[in-house]
Amino acid sequence: MTKIIDGKAFAEGLGAKISQSIPHFAEQTGRRPGLAVVLVGTDPASEIYVRSKGRMARKLGMESFEHILDEGVSQEELLALVARLNADDSVDGILIQLPLPGHLDSLELVSAIHPAKDVDGLHPVSAGLLASGLPGLVSCTPLGCLMLLESVLGSLSGLDAIVVGRSILVGKPMAQLLLARNCTVTIAHSRTANLAAKVAQADIVVAAVGQADMIKGDWIKPGATVIDVGTSRVIRDGQQKLVGDVEFASAAKTAGAITPVPGGVGPMTIMTLMHNTLLAAYRRNRLADPAL
Amino acid sequence: MTKIIDGKAFAEGLGAKISQSIPHFAEQTGRRPGLAVVLVGTDPASEIYVRSKGRMARKLGMESFEHILDEGVSQEELLALVARLNADDSVDGILIQLPLPGHLDSLELVSAIHPAKDVDGLHPVSAGLLASGLPGLVSCTPLGCLMLLESVLGSLSGLDAIVVGRSILVGKPMAQLLLARNCTVTIAHSRTANLAAKVAQADIVVAAVGQADMIKGDWIKPGATVIDVGTSRVIRDGQQKLVGDVEFASAAKTAGAITPVPGGVGPMTIMTLMHNTLLAAYRRNRLADPAL
Ligand SMILES: NC(=O)c1ccc[n+]([C@@H]2O[C@H](COP(=O)([O-])OP(=O)(O)OC[C@H]3O[C@@H](n4cnc5c(N)ncnc54)[C@H](OP(=O)(O)O)[C@@H]3O)[C@@H](O)[C@H]2O)c1
Ligand SMILES: NC(=O)c1ccc[n+]([C@@H]2O[C@H](COP(=O)([O-])OP(=O)(O)OC[C@H]3O[C@@H](n4cnc5c(N)ncnc54)[C@H](OP(=O)(O)O)[C@@H]3O)[C@@H](O)[C@H]2O)c1
Repeated sequence: MTKIIDGKAFAEGLGAKISQSIPHFAEQTGRRPGLAVVLVGTDPASEIYVRSKGRMARKLGMESFEHILDEGVSQEELLALVARLNADDSVDGILIQLPLPGHLDSLELVSAIHPAKDVDGLHPVSAGLLASGLPGLVSCTPLGCLMLLESVLGSLSGLDAIVVGRSILVGKPMAQLLLARNCTVTIAHSRTANLAAKVAQADIVVAAVGQADMIKGDWIKPGATVIDVGTSRVIRDGQQKLVGDVEFASAAKTAGAITPVPGGVGPMTIMTLMHNTLLAAYRRNRLADPAL
Repeated sequence: MTKIIDGKAFAEGLGAKISQSIPHFAEQTGRRPGLAVVLVGTDPASEIYVRSKGRMARKLGMESFEHILDEGVSQEELLALVARLNADDSVDGILIQLPLPGHLDSLELVSAIHPAKDVDGLHPVSAGLLASGLPGLVSCTPLGCLMLLESVLGSLSGLDAIVVGRSILVGKPMAQLLLARNCTVTIAHSRTANLAAKVAQADIVVAAVGQADMIKGDWIKPGATVIDVGTSRVIRDGQQKLVGDVEFASAAKTAGAITPVPGGVGPMTIMTLMHNTLLAAYRRNRLADPAL
């Protein structure tokens, strides 16, 4: 029987543990962990993301600071805001909602965040700490994927994993996390030859491409664990639907375990952001990491 | 016919180009690029490395500053030295010869080097820049391997590569460099299952393990390009010999091209250090990268 990995339930369980770790922090510091989210402009999808992050932070017992800025804000004004948030002791995590309008340099802005507050894990220093096996903050989506994998498989050591996609946000940190867990890791992308044959050899498949149903069920090794990060909006039978990179119906027949879209990786991403904010709060205050 | 990749000849050619790039730097800045090497203690192998680095720097027309410190030097004294070298404008590159005696924290020391002077590419920030696709200084040995691969193959795009070994010094940055060149990259290590079968699928094999002759000739895909980073001292027919991770005699029959040990990767490592020092010197002075 194929296991359908319930990301929503796992995320709720993680949320409960995060909530439970806040009183200890509050006792030690006299305040609650704080997450600052910066949104520029009025992109509806970004607005929804930012609002749900703030709501989740408050629901778990954290403080949420939302900075909503006009489309026309300058790079200098944003850098000044980041500098203020870096210096503000009530802010443990800073997240700049991407993508930013074209006139802004997102790399410079993300790099201006203090690495200790980089809860999105996108700062080059965070990438370097991860690559060097040092403690740092890890990009939320791959961290959530790793948690789901370990919930299904326990130890990942010695397994063959393929990561399809090599973005700085998902694919590359995912590969680093799997390597650190002693998987043998293959990273594939748009130039990869014979992708089907490579996927067919993997015990773990993480798909982070953004192309609806591109990975077919008959590519999957029987019993493999499949994590589908991709999200594409398509019209099926006249209705809008959110689908993943993996053809779910056929893959669910061969896979040992698979995440659905929606309800798999998505709910984990927001919860790992909360996880990272809590971790940043503890570490900035030199408290031992909470048990999560 | 298998091509034996002549690392010594390639390194000499690179050295000539480095030499030719120094007069322009000197005209613009009134000085020559400077490399500072820090050696602690009297390990004979480390002394040889440090001496040959200094000699090569001078031979190419750079300045070499050698700091030879007593075995008993403290972490604080070394940190103070690194701080002085960071502040010294005549120093473009700083290299701390590893391994250090056990009472010293090499990670803290390497992390104290200014990333712009990190010619060994070992600073976590250098690893992060590499992982993020940003310009930075790249660990010398993998950079040399990449140069040899491109000298043989031209474009690496779309090729399947396996890197055996995942150290911060060699394997991990090697994988990043190959990925940036659009290879599909597999990283293997001591926990990898069925290594022979994985090596057999690769167009490019980079071996960085340190176990004499562990990769057998009949594992190699016919026509593949093999880069052997490993170096082990063994006794053969009563004589000390330096051998690689790849069983050379048998691999040379199936490979399309292969590096010998010695004479392959080794001579490249010191020359890419010179390359990095030159690059650091140009970049610190906001000159456009020299043509190398
Ligand atoms: N559920 C969540 O919480 C969550 C979070 C983040 C992202 N996502 C989704 O995950 C997907 C990936 O996100 P991303 O930010 O990583 O995207 P991205 O930056 O666009 O990267 C996509 C990657 O897929 C590769 N690719 C494109 N076509 C391919 C093909 N035919 N075969 C193999 N690889 C191919 C690209 O290769 P090249 O590098 O060669 O171009 C690239 O590395 C998107 O659908 C995104 O919406 C979901
Ligand atoms: N010629 C040069 O200029 C030059 C420069 C640098 C290094 N080297 C040589 O290159 C070699 C590697 O150097 P390094 O610093 O990367 O060494 P290292 O830090 O010891 O790393 C060795 C790597 O090999 C892996 N490994 C060990 N046994 C294995 C096995 N049976 N199968 C597959 N993988 C195995 C290890 O896996 P785990 O991570 O699982 O332990 C580790 O990742 C050494 O011989 C070194 O002397 C040469």
